[in-house]
Amino acid sequence: MSIDLAVIRAAHERIRDKIHRTPVLTSRRLDEACGAQLFFKCENFQKVGAFKARGATNAVFSLSEAEAARGVATHSSGNHAAALARAARLRGVAAHIVMPSNSSAVKQAAVRGYGGQVILSAPTLQAREEACARVLAETGAAFIHPYNDYRVMAGQGTAALELLEDVPDLDLILAPVGGGGLLSGTAIAAKGLQPGIQVIAAEPEQADDARRSFQEGRIIPAQANTIADGLRTSLGELNFPIIRANVDDIVTVSEAAIVAAMRQIWTTMKIIIEPSSAVPYAAIAEKKFAVAGRRVGIILTGGNVDLDALPWLKS
Amino acid sequence: MSIDLAVIRAAHERIRDKIHRTPVLTSRRLDEACGAQLFFKCENFQKVGAFKARGATNAVFSLSEAEAARGVATHSSGNHAAALARAARLRGVAAHIVMPSNSSAVKQAAVRGYGGQVILSAPTLQAREEACARVLAETGAAFIHPYNDYRVMAGQGTAALELLEDVPDLDLILAPVGGGGLLSGTAIAAKGLQPGIQVIAAEPEQADDARRSFQEGRIIPAQANTIADGLRTSLGELNFPIIRANVDDIVTVSEAAIVAAMRQIWTTMKIIIEPSSAVPYAAIAEKKFAVAGRRVGIILTGGNVDLDALPWLKS
Repeated sequence: MSIDLAVIRAAHERIRDKIHRTPVLTSRRLDEACGAQLFFKCENFQKVGAFKARGATNAVFSLSEAEAARGVATHSSGNHAAALARAARLRGVAAHIVMPSNSSAVKQAAVRGYGGQVILSAPTLQAREEACARVLAETGAAFIHPYNDYRVMAGQGTAALELLEDVPDLDLILAPVGGGGLLSGTAIAAKGLQPGIQVIAAEPEQADDARRSFQEGRIIPAQANTIADGLRTSLGELNFPIIRANVDDIVTVSEAAIVAAMRQIWTTMKIIIEPSSAVPYAAIAEKKFAVAGRRVGIILTGGNVDLDALPWLKS
Repeated sequence: MSIDLAVIRAAHERIRDKIHRTPVLTSRRLDEACGAQLFFKCENFQKVGAFKARGATNAVFSLSEAEAARGVATHSSGNHAAALARAARLRGVAAHIVMPSNSSAVKQAAVRGYGGQVILSAPTLQAREEACARVLAETGAAFIHPYNDYRVMAGQGTAALELLEDVPDLDLILAPVGGGGLLSGTAIAAKGLQPGIQVIAAEPEQADDARRSFQEGRIIPAQANTIADGLRTSLGELNFPIIRANVDDIVTVSEAAIVAAMRQIWTTMKIIIEPSSAVPYAAIAEKKFAVAGRRVGIILTGGNVDLDALPWLKS
């Protein structure tokens, strides 16, 4: 099994009344700066503030009644946690979210605010996985992985589906890559709709495992230390072959370029995006590939930022 | 002479292809927080990042060919300066902008970026007015006051016109008040389109000259010390009678409420607004008037913020 355009279209039918159809914004000033036409798909305006609402909602509403009745579970400290809790509440079932004990109070409160049950674990991958296994054994809940799951990938691909419905003739589509859920779905949707489109992913130089994996043909674990906290994970086993088959290139950008791109988008477009969202525009600004005269779609992945710790204010 | 709905409609025809028709955004979360339906007119996405583009453009394109050929001039350190420079460039004429010598390099650069000629003066009102008078005498340029001008008021009123076209059945419309250009235009447009609509203005407690002027029936000069830097000016002589005749009430809010409202809108809506823009929502949050069950339009005036000096980070 894998996913194709039809699966993504079905996901869109399943979730479209449960998510925002986010706007596509443009900026004449940024277009002039890079000599291209840029179309920003604003998932920072999505429910829970990130594209993760798409995949989690598709996964939860793909479950049978019997499966759903036992609830859902995941381990995540980020946007997927809130997205899964919200999707479960929409379906009226329980959500068990394992979060590391050092995750921020704000993030824990977000999950609880959507009715999710937070289970704290020690802040190691092993502890998280063990805690999650216990929850699954006790409850029979369905495990919804943040990205290594076809239902999640199909849901994430609906952002590119909408973007290409609104702006049908893009030459190039850009997405950041962390675990690969968004990138897999984006690539399948884009190549399915327009076989000639180019799909390029961007990631931080300091978390360049996806680029290295892509080049070497095997998954290389992430050793990440980047401000783009959504992009610190390693590629999923299900995501990797889809990415290899459908993505044209993966490029990397410096931390300084990420911060500068984030700030430029805030200043110019008056919208709040998180550091991970700024990575594709950073790649354009650093001229990692040719965009002159081209029509370029960019997925802005989310807008959940700690307003007390903006990166340009750190010493 | 004064202005009426027909004048504002004519202004809209004059400028509509030279400005953005800005979106109207909603937030279920903010609606739930106050028990009303809020419709935010996003002038933070306007050209030059503020509603000021409307009034300046209307004024410049209202000039005869002979008048325009001699250029335009103003004294301003804020958004009107950039807006006038931009409008003049669109018309292909000179803009002479007197700015105080302590105005920020960023603001001076914005004016020059639109082709405006910056004339620096000592940072007193008298010095600014004298410098402006010299420019007018030397060039014969048309003086475009930031708010005490019917052409400017009519232009500013086009934001409310668009808002009520998009959301026709508002019970209440809110705008901040500084010099009164936006408020005059908003009130004329709103009452002209819907005589039963309520128009309420909000201003900082620490710059409450408009509320006191409104209550006492004479213009009381501003003695302002507020973070809402767009609202520090005194009411204009032409604005005041329009406001008295068409505005239902003026309320004031604390500095802490302004900062909290600004941050809440950033966090919830993922958009960047400047402190002045947050003043009406602060008045809702502080329950300065009844909104429960009502449909409320709010003009978000601008998004030009110094990202190095966010108010919640000040010690």
